[in-house]
Amino acid sequence: MYITQCLHRMMQRAPDGVAAIDGDRRTSWAELGEGVARFAGAMRAIGVGPGDRVAILSRNSDRFLEYVLGTLWAGGVINPVNLRWTAAEMGYSLADCDTRVLLVEPGFEHLLPLIRAEAPGLTHVLSTGETSAEGIVPRSLWLANAAPIADALRRGNDLAAILYTGGTTGRPKGVMLSHANMVWSVMGSLAEPGCAPGSVFLHSAPLFHIGALSGLLLSLFAGSTCAFIPAFEPLAMIETIARHRVTDVFFVPTMLRMTIDHPRFAEFDTTSVERIRYGAAPIDDVLLDRAIDAFPNASFCQAYGMTELSPTCCLLGPADHSAEARADGRGRSAGRATTVCEVRIVGPDDAETPRGQVGEIAVRGPTVMQGYWNKPEATAAAVRDGWMHTGDLGRMDENGYVTIVDRLKDMIITGGENVYSAEVENVVATHPSVAAVAVIALPDERWGERVHAVIVPRPGSAADGAAIEAHCRAGLAGYKIPRSIEFVEALPLSGAGKILKAELRRGRVGSG
Amino acid sequence: MYITQCLHRMMQRAPDGVAAIDGDRRTSWAELGEGVARFAGAMRAIGVGPGDRVAILSRNSDRFLEYVLGTLWAGGVINPVNLRWTAAEMGYSLADCDTRVLLVEPGFEHLLPLIRAEAPGLTHVLSTGETSAEGIVPRSLWLANAAPIADALRRGNDLAAILYTGGTTGRPKGVMLSHANMVWSVMGSLAEPGCAPGSVFLHSAPLFHIGALSGLLLSLFAGSTCAFIPAFEPLAMIETIARHRVTDVFFVPTMLRMTIDHPRFAEFDTTSVERIRYGAAPIDDVLLDRAIDAFPNASFCQAYGMTELSPTCCLLGPADHSAEARADGRGRSAGRATTVCEVRIVGPDDAETPRGQVGEIAVRGPTVMQGYWNKPEATAAAVRDGWMHTGDLGRMDENGYVTIVDRLKDMIITGGENVYSAEVENVVATHPSVAAVAVIALPDERWGERVHAVIVPRPGSAADGAAIEAHCRAGLAGYKIPRSIEFVEALPLSGAGKILKAELRRGRVGSG
Repeated sequence: MYITQCLHRMMQRAPDGVAAIDGDRRTSWAELGEGVARFAGAMRAIGVGPGDRVAILSRNSDRFLEYVLGTLWAGGVINPVNLRWTAAEMGYSLADCDTRVLLVEPGFEHLLPLIRAEAPGLTHVLSTGETSAEGIVPRSLWLANAAPIADALRRGNDLAAILYTGGTTGRPKGVMLSHANMVWSVMGSLAEPGCAPGSVFLHSAPLFHIGALSGLLLSLFAGSTCAFIPAFEPLAMIETIARHRVTDVFFVPTMLRMTIDHPRFAEFDTTSVERIRYGAAPIDDVLLDRAIDAFPNASFCQAYGMTELSPTCCLLGPADHSAEARADGRGRSAGRATTVCEVRIVGPDDAETPRGQVGEIAVRGPTVMQGYWNKPEATAAAVRDGWMHTGDLGRMDENGYVTIVDRLKDMIITGGENVYSAEVENVVATHPSVAAVAVIALPDERWGERVHAVIVPRPGSAADGAAIEAHCRAGLAGYKIPRSIEFVEALPLSGAGKILKAELRRGRVGSG
Repeated sequence: MYITQCLHRMMQRAPDGVAAIDGDRRTSWAELGEGVARFAGAMRAIGVGPGDRVAILSRNSDRFLEYVLGTLWAGGVINPVNLRWTAAEMGYSLADCDTRVLLVEPGFEHLLPLIRAEAPGLTHVLSTGETSAEGIVPRSLWLANAAPIADALRRGNDLAAILYTGGTTGRPKGVMLSHANMVWSVMGSLAEPGCAPGSVFLHSAPLFHIGALSGLLLSLFAGSTCAFIPAFEPLAMIETIARHRVTDVFFVPTMLRMTIDHPRFAEFDTTSVERIRYGAAPIDDVLLDRAIDAFPNASFCQAYGMTELSPTCCLLGPADHSAEARADGRGRSAGRATTVCEVRIVGPDDAETPRGQVGEIAVRGPTVMQGYWNKPEATAAAVRDGWMHTGDLGRMDENGYVTIVDRLKDMIITGGENVYSAEVENVVATHPSVAAVAVIALPDERWGERVHAVIVPRPGSAADGAAIEAHCRAGLAGYKIPRSIEFVEALPLSGAGKILKAELRRGRVGSG
């Protein structure tokens, strides 16, 4: 199997069917196929060979779709850039895996000087539009005259994507996913009754994230029309659903809440929505009740996973969103193992724990990543004997339902984004007024969790939260910056001098 | 992925759920798991190691299920015996792939002397019941004291099954299928909306055939309860559907007709049937209309494929059984490529033909067999550049629907069984009264096609059809024996001396 197989399939069975809708632009499967083959020809012409990385810095669009399929068609490896990162973080991720080709959406050119400074190996910076600033080639120049090429047919364990995720020890790591990894993940979702997408799938969550990217592949393999909006924005979401009679959407719960809370929600006909997939966090009962009212024809399916698992390992399907399932607790779980992977709860000795007992969630199967780019030690630590150790602590009930209770990794999930405490602490600690810092998650009604910093000031320094926030802004993506800062005289320490974060969390409450 | 993963999954999520129903015997998933691990222990104890073949000579039952999963759990390879073959044919297939272990259902022991004569390498003949004739070990002896072992976890390209199919040049060939081959085939079916099985799947077609065997795996991966009857028999079928509220069945059209034609059909409540899968032949409109009346709650799905493709390459789903689809011709096709494989029509140069033009149906993907056992030339002839050449002639329409128009291989499909003309001709030709023979398919209302022999008698010999039939019965399985024999003065020959079978077929009509 190979990822572009989904495109060949749709070109065979529905050449005139609508593959993509973006604003007023509609693309048929036959046109998409031609565009992808030409895009691949353009990549080949600038030297992209088997396994070479191609990056994109862009919001969602039909051109993002062309980039994903076209890069793979050329035999290359996609490396989409996280738009929420700082230019320095972006540059680091490009340089780390030696990416030489970068596509840039107009509007992001101002980031290029800083990116280039971090990633001097970039040889080709191409615009997805007609920008032709210094060193940027407009689309008409690099694409229009390219000759289409045949599909390179990379497949199986050949590398398809490198996706960067935050690291527990500071620097992001490049997760290597193969064609087989990603196709198996799609199969796991297609095999689950009621989780398969239908006719028009709206892609609004950022496609540089595995959650949205796997939703894109799922819809392609199911032969759905892909509709795009540049980024999640509740009104655009609602308008697009109504305009194109969208049947399938993917949300993180925060997005779902913002959508149904929008004051103009009731003005639009959103009854076409049949399937709502959500992930990154469980849905709370109040939100689910409201969502069921708001989307009366929709079934709900929760996906749990991580980038290293391509990403889904557990699904909570429509049947588990019934009133009965919610009453008996299943509906509050992360679901059960998909058809394609094995999930178990293990103790520190890697032996399976008895049902009901808390341990680390471990996953085995064809969706487990190929490893972290250039980090064999980190790979060996995470994947042991074929089992990916998620770093999430959970328990499994007698029917295989997994409930997540905590995280081994010191990480905060805010609005669906993972923030590693260590990375934020490293930046905060460099401020001259900070003697010690601990960054923890506090519950947050809107974002699920929020980043909270507990700081011990240096003797004689002023406790100036605003100054520390400004300091963070220079080095960290917006969503990583502490949303609340608290000054204390001392941090609670264990006998070994380790900060007792559980104790810090216990004493604090979240806010809306 | 590995095949027994489906068992691990169900043991995790529904240990007390019903895995199998056979007569009055019900087995839970936990019990099935224990039985499989113990069966595997028994195999290991008699020396079955990774890749070793284990055969079974048995009708359908829950013990057949235990055999399939237990052999794979032990790391072995299943080699189920075609019950319709003669003992000599069975022995040939066992000897060909050096099978040393054979399980035998009570009632088939009389075949053993002839089988052993052909397959002297058999070291262990085990009864699936309590038979203890000479050289046959009763189940209580070989199984009861076996210690359960851990799953050998053979997977991916490791061999899982060798299934024998008739050969164009006489002798049957062993088709080698890996774990990945068979799991991908299941995935292709699970991904198709409306083709996924539900809660109780009745297995009545013979499990030594890939069609029924893949239905078994499909139901296991979907977590259905497997119900068994020893062999297809219309009344047993109807009674079992009613008794166990069966939701899913697999038929060849001949079986479907016999079922709904049964005089007692209306006495039983068969409204529980939700999904009818059928294969081996398209369904005719009259039969489909009657079947829709007979099973008012059922959707229909046709599978097209062959053993070498694990087996399904095309599916005609429920939506393509609508009145509209039947009116425009799609409903008479063999369907379209599954999600996991690529199908195209090629000319003699292996280049794809334009849509609508007849050529050979070729298939590529993860379900293509590993090859024919010990027949590298035959493998290389069939699988070229990754494409399995099916030997079926067909055309593809603008939406990817494949219609089969003829067969390149000189083969007859009668009641779902493949009969190679060459094999029958070889036997007929050895009769002393036969000067020349051509075996062809004639249309048959009941069996789809029937085996018809056109014979030129030797000068001076009597044209004695009964004598030739008796001669065939000694060397051929019952379904391969010509159902009609015709004597002619000469066969039509091409300039090169090749028999013009198309001309023979044209002049003849079938019968009910």
